[in-house]
Amino acid sequence: MKYVSFTHADGTAGFGRLNGEQIEVLSNQAADLKSAISEGSLGTLSSDETIAIESVTLAPVIPNPGKVFCVGHNYETHRKETGRAPTDYPSIFVRFADSLNAHDHPIIMPKVSTDLDFEGELAVIIGKGGRYISEDDAMSHVAGYACFNDASVRDWQWHSRQFTPGKNFPTTGPFGPYMVSTDEAGDLSEINVTTRLNDEIVQQQPIGDMIFPIATVIAYISSFTPLQPGDVIASGTPGGVGAKRTPPLWMKPGDTISVEIGPMGVLSNTIVAE
Amino acid sequence: MKYVSFTHADGTAGFGRLNGEQIEVLSNQAADLKSAISEGSLGTLSSDETIAIESVTLAPVIPNPGKVFCVGHNYETHRKETGRAPTDYPSIFVRFADSLNAHDHPIIMPKVSTDLDFEGELAVIIGKGGRYISEDDAMSHVAGYACFNDASVRDWQWHSRQFTPGKNFPTTGPFGPYMVSTDEAGDLSEINVTTRLNDEIVQQQPIGDMIFPIATVIAYISSFTPLQPGDVIASGTPGGVGAKRTPPLWMKPGDTISVEIGPMGVLSNTIVAE
Repeated sequence: MKYVSFTHADGTAGFGRLNGEQIEVLSNQAADLKSAISEGSLGTLSSDETIAIESVTLAPVIPNPGKVFCVGHNYETHRKETGRAPTDYPSIFVRFADSLNAHDHPIIMPKVSTDLDFEGELAVIIGKGGRYISEDDAMSHVAGYACFNDASVRDWQWHSRQFTPGKNFPTTGPFGPYMVSTDEAGDLSEINVTTRLNDEIVQQQPIGDMIFPIATVIAYISSFTPLQPGDVIASGTPGGVGAKRTPPLWMKPGDTISVEIGPMGVLSNTIVAE
Repeated sequence: MKYVSFTHADGTAGFGRLNGEQIEVLSNQAADLKSAISEGSLGTLSSDETIAIESVTLAPVIPNPGKVFCVGHNYETHRKETGRAPTDYPSIFVRFADSLNAHDHPIIMPKVSTDLDFEGELAVIIGKGGRYISEDDAMSHVAGYACFNDASVRDWQWHSRQFTPGKNFPTTGPFGPYMVSTDEAGDLSEINVTTRLNDEIVQQQPIGDMIFPIATVIAYISSFTPLQPGDVIASGTPGGVGAKRTPPLWMKPGDTISVEIGPMGVLSNTIVAE
């Protein structure tokens, strides 16, 4: 099943189950999608109100995650283009939740940079928390998946070795349009992550090509910090980023960037200047 | 004035103003210390209940900050001992709030490592939020200061270039015992950050030696992410860390580590094995 978070026209927040163009509103059954995931009852919640998706404004799939992790250099094509040495462990950096963005909302190119790059990724949404989760058990801790764009302000990312500044500008983390539950998503290994800049394919690689598979990443992260329901892991981007092209291919105001991942649909955003 | 966050014997949370060994309880005036800072009325709140500090258990000064930033290599002595090249910008990494710890609570040496290191630091607590804060205006955004120990699990810190794993193990971010308001803290440039391992001085350097002063760090961070009241910036550690000694000087179960910074008092913690 597919789930969305949104705001009604009056500004109140809600969430629900998406059926085609209709949303079965579930907001009277839990405070928000994260809470519903946490309570473990998401799949069985029933709705007595259906609304058209056009009547609401989508929010990031989980608008208020406790923790957002990103995995660096998790596809060999991207590792090679960045010139990074192989590592024995996933590279993990952090996004603040207020850098997240929704489907169809603008990505703001900050006034302090023009080096705005795309990174199409699969986002993993944690369903069941834990510490020291084993790799064997890790996939049972996943609630679902969504498209993610780990849009990066490259000059700020490279001010030092720590990626924090370039990965946290507001609106640079599009996340949506919806979460697909693990049962509906099925086996993802052959599914492509495809990124398009103005309809031209700029990244395309199957999820099965990850250097550190999702289970490995979950086990690793939960070794140093507790995971909670609703936490998000952006699992890394394939090769083809704009920064490593000659000349660099930066996104600019007016561009449209989209991330498509099989059953997770298409996440699309346009760029506007601050 | 000095402020503490704590839990009563019955487990309820509170905060108040510290006068010697007495706390003027302020919990009926705001939800928590972060909220009181946010409302801008902290200095004028009055209390009708005074309790002994011995009757409560201290919490991290701000138990629930929205964002915790750490500055890497911000003293020349530490930059040199790590062999890092000078950078034109502060190096910023992130701690999750659930890695914070209180004064006099144990630091848990995780079962997955023995490379547990100390980093005595000055923590800056944001009073007034903002984006694109100018360096000239930055110090007016500070509510106060406290001692911080950015305790680091070095092997995990160095699994990749991103410091996240080694800086986020639970209990590794002692923060306290109290916040000192900026007016009481006064000019900090000549004040030493002193770290002691079992009473031996292992780090000692004046705050004025920072490569990027506090105002510069606030202006820089607020360029890429909005700051909010109660956000915390651990401003970097002087040279002398255990990892860069020969042989390395790791903290081990039974050790006591303390950070002393003039008016901010002494933050002390013992190490226990997980």
